[in-house]
Amino acid sequence: MAPKYLTGDHAAIDSFINQFELASLGIPSNPEEVFTSAYSSAVYIAGFLDASVRRNKVFVLGEAGIETELRSKGIQFIGGTDPSYRRDITAEDYKLIADGSLLDDTVGVVLVGLDLHINYLKLAIAYQYLIRGSIFLATNTDSTYPSNKTLFPGAGSISKPLVNMFNIPPIALGKPSQEMMDAIEGNFKLDRQKTCMVGDRLDTDIKFGIEGKLGGTLLVLTGVSKKGDWEHNDAAAIPAFYVDKLSDLRG
Amino acid sequence: MAPKYLTGDHAAIDSFINQFELASLGIPSNPEEVFTSAYSSAVYIAGFLDASVRRNKVFVLGEAGIETELRSKGIQFIGGTDPSYRRDITAEDYKLIADGSLLDDTVGVVLVGLDLHINYLKLAIAYQYLIRGSIFLATNTDSTYPSNKTLFPGAGSISKPLVNMFNIPPIALGKPSQEMMDAIEGNFKLDRQKTCMVGDRLDTDIKFGIEGKLGGTLLVLTGVSKKGDWEHNDAAAIPAFYVDKLSDLRG
Repeated sequence: MAPKYLTGDHAAIDSFINQFELASLGIPSNPEEVFTSAYSSAVYIAGFLDASVRRNKVFVLGEAGIETELRSKGIQFIGGTDPSYRRDITAEDYKLIADGSLLDDTVGVVLVGLDLHINYLKLAIAYQYLIRGSIFLATNTDSTYPSNKTLFPGAGSISKPLVNMFNIPPIALGKPSQEMMDAIEGNFKLDRQKTCMVGDRLDTDIKFGIEGKLGGTLLVLTGVSKKGDWEHNDAAAIPAFYVDKLSDLRG
Repeated sequence: MAPKYLTGDHAAIDSFINQFELASLGIPSNPEEVFTSAYSSAVYIAGFLDASVRRNKVFVLGEAGIETELRSKGIQFIGGTDPSYRRDITAEDYKLIADGSLLDDTVGVVLVGLDLHINYLKLAIAYQYLIRGSIFLATNTDSTYPSNKTLFPGAGSISKPLVNMFNIPPIALGKPSQEMMDAIEGNFKLDRQKTCMVGDRLDTDIKFGIEGKLGGTLLVLTGVSKKGDWEHNDAAAIPAFYVDKLSDLRG
């Protein structure tokens, strides 16, 4: 079976492929085989939303990748890349948000991913949907993601203003969420016992593989988690194997 | 002595005056007498930054009110309302932020207040200043602020993406910070024993008055804290007095 790649968002795919030097290893790294947490979010939402539910629309804080996945499952959404939300909040908006006339009362889910166009207007609107009873979902809760040898704000940081206002954390659909594991298993018909999870974070990747009862887990030390991090008492997970870098597997 | 008003930001002044019905009570409510946490932030920064420090500039996430206060203390800053930061992040930005060429290496403080123009670019830049050693300050940590009978994102929610990425909370200069109390005492020459703190939040307003050893504290039940909240074991503070609404003091 060809390798499958699990990541937070399509925006992170390039940095991901670079980090693991997949091309130089001769490992296929077709973006089509990247399975994002946006996809597992769409699978999860499709599981409880359908046309029979009146509040069947999703308000999206995120980019085109999330929209593509929602569309593939026939899920209606607003927000996302809609340019009408990419603007400053006005004095009039305060009134229209408060009295509900700027809101769509068929929204029943707020889904937050990596939104490179996060702004005050969208946060204010998303908060109203939450206090009016929408389900709070996050594609993933990664605080940062690596790019150009430093870190940039991740999807988990984009959702934090809402978590702080609403006081209840979102259901996170990225690693280590087992909703993502179930979605992958259904999609690729994989045999868990013959599957190895390879990743660079104990708290998401390795935990995901262990809780999903995969055949193995391999930590690669080119990312966030460092050698010996699994020896701490509060280690998020213990990998079955580790390598300094993926190319150590050659030869 | 005329009443003084302590609030998070100039943007909140109108809703504040409305909430407490100050005009109908005949209580003077001159915006000049509103003392903001932006002012106490400026006083605090002026205490350790001066021209002799090489990294003497502040990177601001916030609006014009903060800039006014910084200017009044002769503090240099960048960011804030500068339109060049009010735009989408580009692929080129990732490189220039990572290699530092988009950064000003004389920045030594990141100050986050209520920023109605929060965006991804500013968060990515502020994070770089933090990991390069800047001091992390917040004008206040209010999660929300009331307007039009609902809640909107407060300064404390604007700083949360950075708190989540940096993993260290900011020094908060708003209530209940005693840096703010000291700044007020110095500014108005007030006699703490003859001063009563009036407010609607136990965890900020009432705590601020008690820790500042003011003569009294009065909780008004028109806002966030509810009757009896101070009877819980984990109550943030116990007010000396309370009223349902400020106008109950009449007659």
